[in-house]
Amino acid sequence: MSRTRVHNFAVSLDGFGSGEPQSLEAPFGHAGQRLHEWMFATRFWGPEGATGVDDAFAQQHGAGFGAEIMGANKFGPPGWPDDPAWRGWWGEDPPFHTPTFVLTHHPREPLEMAGGTTFHFLDASPAEALEVARAAAGGLDVRIGGGAAVVRDFLAAGLVDHAHLVVVPIVLGRGTRVWDGLEALEDAYAVEAVSSPSGVTHLTLTRRR
Amino acid sequence: MSRTRVHNFAVSLDGFGSGEPQSLEAPFGHAGQRLHEWMFATRFWGPEGATGVDDAFAQQHGAGFGAEIMGANKFGPPGWPDDPAWRGWWGEDPPFHTPTFVLTHHPREPLEMAGGTTFHFLDASPAEALEVARAAAGGLDVRIGGGAAVVRDFLAAGLVDHAHLVVVPIVLGRGTRVWDGLEALEDAYAVEAVSSPSGVTHLTLTRRR
Repeated sequence: MSRTRVHNFAVSLDGFGSGEPQSLEAPFGHAGQRLHEWMFATRFWGPEGATGVDDAFAQQHGAGFGAEIMGANKFGPPGWPDDPAWRGWWGEDPPFHTPTFVLTHHPREPLEMAGGTTFHFLDASPAEALEVARAAAGGLDVRIGGGAAVVRDFLAAGLVDHAHLVVVPIVLGRGTRVWDGLEALEDAYAVEAVSSPSGVTHLTLTRRR
Repeated sequence: MSRTRVHNFAVSLDGFGSGEPQSLEAPFGHAGQRLHEWMFATRFWGPEGATGVDDAFAQQHGAGFGAEIMGANKFGPPGWPDDPAWRGWWGEDPPFHTPTFVLTHHPREPLEMAGGTTFHFLDASPAEALEVARAAAGGLDVRIGGGAAVVRDFLAAGLVDHAHLVVVPIVLGRGTRVWDGLEALEDAYAVEAVSSPSGVTHLTLTRRR
């Protein structure tokens, strides 16, 4: 059965999944790289990285996916829909290797990249986008890739089967909130927390049946 | 050296230290008892309770204190300043056993209770209140007892030496936010996180020297 999953989604102690303002130079705003240092230190990120609990979680980002859905803010900096030459942050061989659906109010023609990634642009609700992505995933899982607003919207719509969030011990103070509108999420999801020697805490949300 | 400490202060995943609305029947609003179930299960709370990491942290609430400072919302439900007969939630022998300073814009005469607790009512800034409480503490530590707004204000003012917060895996959605106004708190405090089999995560903040 194809599942919908979130992996390696970092959030500050005060619940922000991104800082502000987001720009070409600072995709996560004033958060800089601080939400993801735990991940850069893993073998998942590079061959010199460490194994251990952070790596064990991080590795799950890659396995078993047939499609990704991401928000407009993950695909590019503010204003990218006005730039017909924008092809994403990731160069000509993006790390998705599947059909990848970008939610945007400004759809354009699909972009076929190297390595199996094709970007499709959809102006659709979470449920509609998931139906399209599921059909493209060939029986494999669909990753909800972020950013914060997209993770929040898919959780709020009850469309996520499994979510891995990583609480990083920093207080951002401002940015995009992940938890807003998710009151009583614990009624729908079993929540496990495990802290790591790196200082982060891995949260695993598994939808109750 | 007398320290200023916060202990056993529970906060939801989305950063609320209390639900809403607060009332005589529901001191934590719609949060009910859910922020404190981890504590009720410890030996700190009762002789049938469990030992373990939750209890080890909870026990630190009691030792070495000569005074407590609390906010008006901890002392009573909304409207208590209009009721001259209100003597706190805790009956005639409150669990403080020290001078206890209640921050309020409606001061009244001190209330001497049994067991060593005397409530003093102060209309003062955090720094002013801490000076008074420190003088009354006889060289022992001062506890910042909450609620959320008081913990936040003392942290923001840089007056807290050590804070123990407990992240409970629920999403409250509304109430009083603990982390607001504390951007970059990690620059001033070393943060340790340790998760417990009960599901909560203990955060320890230690002021950097």
